[in-house]
Amino acid sequence: MKIGFIGLGHMGSGMAARLITAGHEVTVYNRTPGKAGALAAQGAKVAQTIAEACQGAAVFTMLANDEAVESVVFAERGILASLPNGAIHISSSTISVLLSDRLEKAHREAGQRYVAATVLGRPEAAAAGKLFVVAAGAPDAVADVTPLLEAVGQGTTLFGDRGSAANLVKLAANFMTASVIESLGEAMALVSKGNIDKRRFLEFLTSGNFNAPVFRIFGELIVADAPAPAGFAAPLAFKDIRLALQAGESLRVPMPFASVLHDRFVELLANGGDKLDWSAIGRVQSRDSAQPELAEISAS
Amino acid sequence: MKIGFIGLGHMGSGMAARLITAGHEVTVYNRTPGKAGALAAQGAKVAQTIAEACQGAAVFTMLANDEAVESVVFAERGILASLPNGAIHISSSTISVLLSDRLEKAHREAGQRYVAATVLGRPEAAAAGKLFVVAAGAPDAVADVTPLLEAVGQGTTLFGDRGSAANLVKLAANFMTASVIESLGEAMALVSKGNIDKRRFLEFLTSGNFNAPVFRIFGELIVADAPAPAGFAAPLAFKDIRLALQAGESLRVPMPFASVLHDRFVELLANGGDKLDWSAIGRVQSRDSAQPELAEISAS
Amino acid sequence: MKIGFIGLGHMGSGMAARLITAGHEVTVYNRTPGKAGALAAQGAKVAQTIAEACQGAAVFTMLANDEAVESVVFAERGILASLPNGAIHISSSTISVLLSDRLEKAHREAGQRYVAATVLGRPEAAAAGKLFVVAAGAPDAVADVTPLLEAVGQGTTLFGDRGSAANLVKLAANFMTASVIESLGEAMALVSKGNIDKRRFLEFLTSGNFNAPVFRIFGELIVADAPAPAGFAAPLAFKDIRLALQAGESLRVPMPFASVLHDRFVELLANGGDKLDWSAIGRVQSRDSAQPELAEISAS
Amino acid sequence: MKIGFIGLGHMGSGMAARLITAGHEVTVYNRTPGKAGALAAQGAKVAQTIAEACQGAAVFTMLANDEAVESVVFAERGILASLPNGAIHISSSTISVLLSDRLEKAHREAGQRYVAATVLGRPEAAAAGKLFVVAAGAPDAVADVTPLLEAVGQGTTLFGDRGSAANLVKLAANFMTASVIESLGEAMALVSKGNIDKRRFLEFLTSGNFNAPVFRIFGELIVADAPAPAGFAAPLAFKDIRLALQAGESLRVPMPFASVLHDRFVELLANGGDKLDWSAIGRVQSRDSAQPELAEISAS
Repeated sequence: MKIGFIGLGHMGSGMAARLITAGHEVTVYNRTPGKAGALAAQGAKVAQTIAEACQGAAVFTMLANDEAVESVVFAERGILASLPNGAIHISSSTISVLLSDRLEKAHREAGQRYVAATVLGRPEAAAAGKLFVVAAGAPDAVADVTPLLEAVGQGTTLFGDRGSAANLVKLAANFMTASVIESLGEAMALVSKGNIDKRRFLEFLTSGNFNAPVFRIFGELIVADAPAPAGFAAPLAFKDIRLALQAGESLRVPMPFASVLHDRFVELLANGGDKLDWSAIGRVQSRDSAQPELAEISAS
Repeated sequence: MKIGFIGLGHMGSGMAARLITAGHEVTVYNRTPGKAGALAAQGAKVAQTIAEACQGAAVFTMLANDEAVESVVFAERGILASLPNGAIHISSSTISVLLSDRLEKAHREAGQRYVAATVLGRPEAAAAGKLFVVAAGAPDAVADVTPLLEAVGQGTTLFGDRGSAANLVKLAANFMTASVIESLGEAMALVSKGNIDKRRFLEFLTSGNFNAPVFRIFGELIVADAPAPAGFAAPLAFKDIRLALQAGESLRVPMPFASVLHDRFVELLANGGDKLDWSAIGRVQSRDSAQPELAEISAS
Repeated sequence: MKIGFIGLGHMGSGMAARLITAGHEVTVYNRTPGKAGALAAQGAKVAQTIAEACQGAAVFTMLANDEAVESVVFAERGILASLPNGAIHISSSTISVLLSDRLEKAHREAGQRYVAATVLGRPEAAAAGKLFVVAAGAPDAVADVTPLLEAVGQGTTLFGDRGSAANLVKLAANFMTASVIESLGEAMALVSKGNIDKRRFLEFLTSGNFNAPVFRIFGELIVADAPAPAGFAAPLAFKDIRLALQAGESLRVPMPFASVLHDRFVELLANGGDKLDWSAIGRVQSRDSAQPELAEISAS
Repeated sequence: MKIGFIGLGHMGSGMAARLITAGHEVTVYNRTPGKAGALAAQGAKVAQTIAEACQGAAVFTMLANDEAVESVVFAERGILASLPNGAIHISSSTISVLLSDRLEKAHREAGQRYVAATVLGRPEAAAAGKLFVVAAGAPDAVADVTPLLEAVGQGTTLFGDRGSAANLVKLAANFMTASVIESLGEAMALVSKGNIDKRRFLEFLTSGNFNAPVFRIFGELIVADAPAPAGFAAPLAFKDIRLALQAGESLRVPMPFASVLHDRFVELLANGGDKLDWSAIGRVQSRDSAQPELAEISAS
């Protein structure tokens, strides 16, 4: 299929590469040039403008936040102005429910189609085509992009015909993961100050009822207690918690755990955590409880 | 081995039965008589006094809380007064770190031995010998009771020679489980008010990074949204959260998630949740967010 | 002075009337017509367009939120396009720090001036000229509008030359008031379930260290335990708490009390509190703690 | 009146001195000797045992916590064993509702009488007879001790005939004060990081709706941002928050602000705050938000 791909960060690059590998004809675009080199070497066409990336049957966007998506969609020569009649905008960014609804409406009114297809997984999973895809949108549009979604992920779960459902599920899942990190952080601080080996505690947990990747992955990061390279950077994770809270405001769902996480991330960012992985909220916990081994949150 | 077993509630009965099945000579005691019938039929000797249950090489206690354990241990003809020199008190109740330390000291001073061996799992697991056992204590004592622990569980994890470590691990693990329940409750309320099917959301979670029993078991209970028969009753779970907070106070570890859970359980109990399973804190979430289908927290 | 006044809600009407009484020549504008009748009778000129209200030396805006202010300022024939060179926009709405900074910059670039002059007090205080005014902006501009601020308030406190400081102070003060409401709600629920008379408790507090209007006013509303006519409607108060949290995010200040308040307001709005006074978060507390006398949050 | 006074800490010494000044015949006792010198010089008789302090018509206790009160009351030759028939135990310590109820029952069964008379105010107020007294108990007993309460305070508020009501009111009032401290801490951190002068903000607040001693006193301490001499030491304040939460557990009142305060105090104590005034939870806020001027919580 002839498609475009806008947004070549860690996740986007991996996804675009998978689409090329799967045989699609991919035109890539990134606001900051110079990120497209490796993809060009793999066969991607490099667009100089957003419009050039919108000449196919579909265009992916994989961008940092609402503002970035708004700017490429609603710009004068943006996606909305450039996408052919009937073509599909596949929105993979983690954006707000409100914006997703607004995109769906705008594309419909412009005679275009819209699928929200958010993804779960780290950059390595993106590069390996091992993401979990969460998609929602009009059934015909979803059907048409299914081969594309299959190229980037190891499975797609559908959540009905309103695109923003996929965004809400993504936010809820990221909230769940952040909750696991915080609960591990608190439990680890507790046992650790009780002179119990953190690794042994983690092994015990994950050998029983807590035997899931989310506990193993983040448990290891917290046990290591060193600032990890940012698989998912704290400011992005904070954005997602704010979007989850914002969705809770609109839908009128109080979320006290999400509020605790909100405050944790603010504390983390206040204390130098901008470059750290989101698991570093466990280091905030270490500092608040005066763990002897921790000097500074952002230092190794 | 000739042993005693004190405390024949849902958990204790199952554990005692397993010990009998494994060939041990078990004398059982319960404050309220009449609970020992089935065990007697399986071959247990039924004691009329605590002292009678303390004539063997070891005695288990599996009781509701600190007060109950204190009363059987420190009573005039209690365990401390009755246990032979060198015999072992195996404390399986979920009690405070403080009391566990106190028991260890008291038994040592009395020439007796002490092992804390807490267990994770529901009554069905106890009956099936499928509990996870967490043990700590002096190595010789732990070694001597290993066959007993093997009879009640599917595996024992050791946490060093200070008994209370086993209690702290148990509290931390229950805190982790309660955190999973709360995070599922919040996430489910969010997606549900966004018109997303809760079961589908759960299946998505548990097919990926959240593929662990703790998410499946409690996810199902929250999706069902009906007051469950109390596998673990809310007041007992609340007790454990309070003990975790109390341990955090002593060790000086602030635990904001535990504090949210504390308030959740108080709200649940204020609104008729005394007989419900601890997963019912998800119903508190449903009420606070005015889920249309929920009438009352405690009604089915 | 010849001035304009945009936004004739409960607060704005009272302020505009005070300006007329003080002898100023006031042209009023409201998006929804029909609110200007009483002011016209007092001598106000009624504008049909925003531009007509921008012909004087200054124009006040007193609107519900960021969106409303943005729309009147940045519209094609809005304030920015209409205000004469050197004239002053006096922004009295409770808006975000970000928008206030943006307004200041836009007016400066347009050769206009900007003063943020937020007000504290209920509609009755506005009508009586008894508001407390918090102002910030370039000294010359502040000096020029001082007679206007004196007409609407019983005193003006200056917070330097960056306009948004006045907005931040307003948000901090509203956060303080909401915290008083919540703490009174919790304390009242506690003593009340302990069979202590709430009014007596309030009298005790306010006869000693808590002898301030904020405790007396909101204490009375909580003691009465009836939905009050909305002196300050819950959705507006919620907006302010969100703006305070948002300011905390930008400035990197974790605010756990503000997060609790956030969740309280979401719960209130989920349960029918849209028309209630913000003191109704005390009724949420009554429901969560199952106070016997409370049937429904929104019913009297 | 011939009375005893047990507990000669900062508060107790001041109260005992006032009683002597008012003409009462006071026998004082302190577990640690050597604190009675100044009082002896003023005319107090110094008891060597608890029993000696229980020979009059009434005996005050002013001790640190439940454990201390339990030990002097229930000891072999303690108050319960020593107080004459009909004599009155005036309990002024901040203790739990549960213990207060237990004391009332025990004294009644022993033919003695019980009045709970808690006090609000700092040590200076105690020395000056300017405390606020909160009393509850059987009317005859309260009437009999009224001259004593008048000697220590500037006013007594009665809360009915169940003694523990006075304890609950005291806990609720201390919770209110701690909430003021936390809300001031958060608001101050917010405006301060927004480059607003903290003192000016405080003056603004206290010139309007927040014009009460509680805002002025703690506002000044937070503005000063230096560890204050402990007018009320953090560990004692933490004890009171725990007792308030415990009362909330018994009465089934969820108190989310109290839970935030709980976590604040744990963080304060984890980071060296044992000797600081309770206003130092504002310094925790300063650290969490990385206020530039703060080096360490416990350093000046």
